[in-house]
Amino acid sequence: MDNKIKVGIVGYGNVGKGVELAVGQNSDMILSAILTRRDPEKIVPKSSSTKVLHIDKAKDLIGSLDVVVLCGGSATDLVEQGPHFAQYFNIVDSFDTHAKIPGYFDAINNAASRNKNIAIISTGWDPGLFSLLRVVQNSCVPNGKTYTFWGPGISQGHSDAIRRIKGVKDARQYTVPVDSALNKVRSGLNPDLSTRDKHTRQCYVVLEDDTAKERSRVESEIKNMPNYFAEYNTIVNFISKEELLAKHSKMPHGGFVLTSGESGAGSKHLMEFSLKLESNPEFTGNVLAAYTRAAYRLRKEGVVGAQTVFDIAPKYLSPKSSEELRKSML
Amino acid sequence: MDNKIKVGIVGYGNVGKGVELAVGQNSDMILSAILTRRDPEKIVPKSSSTKVLHIDKAKDLIGSLDVVVLCGGSATDLVEQGPHFAQYFNIVDSFDTHAKIPGYFDAINNAASRNKNIAIISTGWDPGLFSLLRVVQNSCVPNGKTYTFWGPGISQGHSDAIRRIKGVKDARQYTVPVDSALNKVRSGLNPDLSTRDKHTRQCYVVLEDDTAKERSRVESEIKNMPNYFAEYNTIVNFISKEELLAKHSKMPHGGFVLTSGESGAGSKHLMEFSLKLESNPEFTGNVLAAYTRAAYRLRKEGVVGAQTVFDIAPKYLSPKSSEELRKSML
Repeated sequence: MDNKIKVGIVGYGNVGKGVELAVGQNSDMILSAILTRRDPEKIVPKSSSTKVLHIDKAKDLIGSLDVVVLCGGSATDLVEQGPHFAQYFNIVDSFDTHAKIPGYFDAINNAASRNKNIAIISTGWDPGLFSLLRVVQNSCVPNGKTYTFWGPGISQGHSDAIRRIKGVKDARQYTVPVDSALNKVRSGLNPDLSTRDKHTRQCYVVLEDDTAKERSRVESEIKNMPNYFAEYNTIVNFISKEELLAKHSKMPHGGFVLTSGESGAGSKHLMEFSLKLESNPEFTGNVLAAYTRAAYRLRKEGVVGAQTVFDIAPKYLSPKSSEELRKSML
Repeated sequence: MDNKIKVGIVGYGNVGKGVELAVGQNSDMILSAILTRRDPEKIVPKSSSTKVLHIDKAKDLIGSLDVVVLCGGSATDLVEQGPHFAQYFNIVDSFDTHAKIPGYFDAINNAASRNKNIAIISTGWDPGLFSLLRVVQNSCVPNGKTYTFWGPGISQGHSDAIRRIKGVKDARQYTVPVDSALNKVRSGLNPDLSTRDKHTRQCYVVLEDDTAKERSRVESEIKNMPNYFAEYNTIVNFISKEELLAKHSKMPHGGFVLTSGESGAGSKHLMEFSLKLESNPEFTGNVLAAYTRAAYRLRKEGVVGAQTVFDIAPKYLSPKSSEELRKSML
């Protein structure tokens, strides 16, 4: 146990619980601490060796955690917590507000470098594994075009947007890749596709008062909501609360990264990476755990400062030694 | 031009020509030299700035090439050339004799380290990109099973084996993944599959003397050939020389790397990477070019010795800067 990687998590929502499960699947790691804004007494961790502390007590753990995984949301939690925790711990996160990544990287890099910590940001699957594949695929088909499709999967943001409409009791929104667009890419046509060309939006809505009039009003409000739905092919289904709970209470997701192009002699090449996930936060937890191992190992090698998936050689993700990897996986 | 990566290639067969085409697609590289065992006068490179020299003159180029890509076969060429050239140049190769990789790695590492060169071995797509994905996927689904399927594509070794049969004028053998096996993996059943369960062997054969009797004899010889065909579902088609040339003279290949497993809470996760290549050697050339860039950059950072795809962070493959990658690809 003493030579296991001692992991802490900050935030015990879906992703935090995913990391807890993931650490349990990796025998070289142990979840030493959960830091939460909630009442620590109310959290029962899966392992008796996991301490639960209020987030304000984080500094008590300096020196006793190898890596801290930040599991809060990007919009409000990570922008604060990232630069703060990077001062005191090696950290890993899944910061995913795309436009803010360069600024976040700089803030984290500054805090981590000054304090000789390593911080691997924006891991998970997108950003994360999908980013990794975009770079690898793009580099191997230099004149190619790279496409990312998301889904089929629940979009939390779009589900929330529907739930904010008056008269809506509950709702789930699935982002679904458009098969015909996917197949155009696979056939090597290299089409120009916007995000809306690539995805349809499937909505499952429970109304407070399920009447024809209400259905008509809510459907129209959804379909005309700018940015979220107006520009998309949107399908609205009204269902009962029971059906929603029975059929739509999981958090599946996934997607595709495709690169299509030609060699210098005109031979067509297609590279495709896809994920089909029954639980988005549990898979995200697994990816965070793999990059936690990388953070631990790289810090041992003296690496400090902010890093992304682009900076991490594959060997650091695996519990196997380089010799084992060359022998069994090359 | 002075700040371009000066590339040399050793061997001007299919892969060497693929690297030449690939270098032409990467504006930060230039093909400075082709080294060949053939008569250099008989080779006309695509660019007038490429010198063609006999391989015995390689030492004349010491100091004038940034990276040399070894494009010979693994069985006889690379085992000799790798450790030899690693003494004088930074090298990249696609050594693919699986069982010999550990010994080859050590020999190369010894030669390269002593002479402060970098040597990235066993790149290409398998070993190479498929290896990379096996490690990444395995690390992100720690309790999962990882499967590699090859094809549909031409197997040179199996085509040669058929051509050695008496009475065979010419032949091509396609390795074809078994759809039902692929779908079993995709459905999360985690079946136990041997190489033969995963692949069928499609043979196209031209006979010297196309009679019913000859067809029967040759078909039987193919289907009963141990190691190559006897253990597989093998389909033999007899065709004319004209049809073979018209329909089977390209070198397509590809395959799939799938990892399927469950999270700690039992949610199923499937990761899949696939390649569909119209030209195996041209795509291999593209991958070698991307790792050539990595070799050049890593050597500039002071890295020496033998490396594999497991040791190379994705950023080194791309011509973009880290800032650009974070901004546009993360």
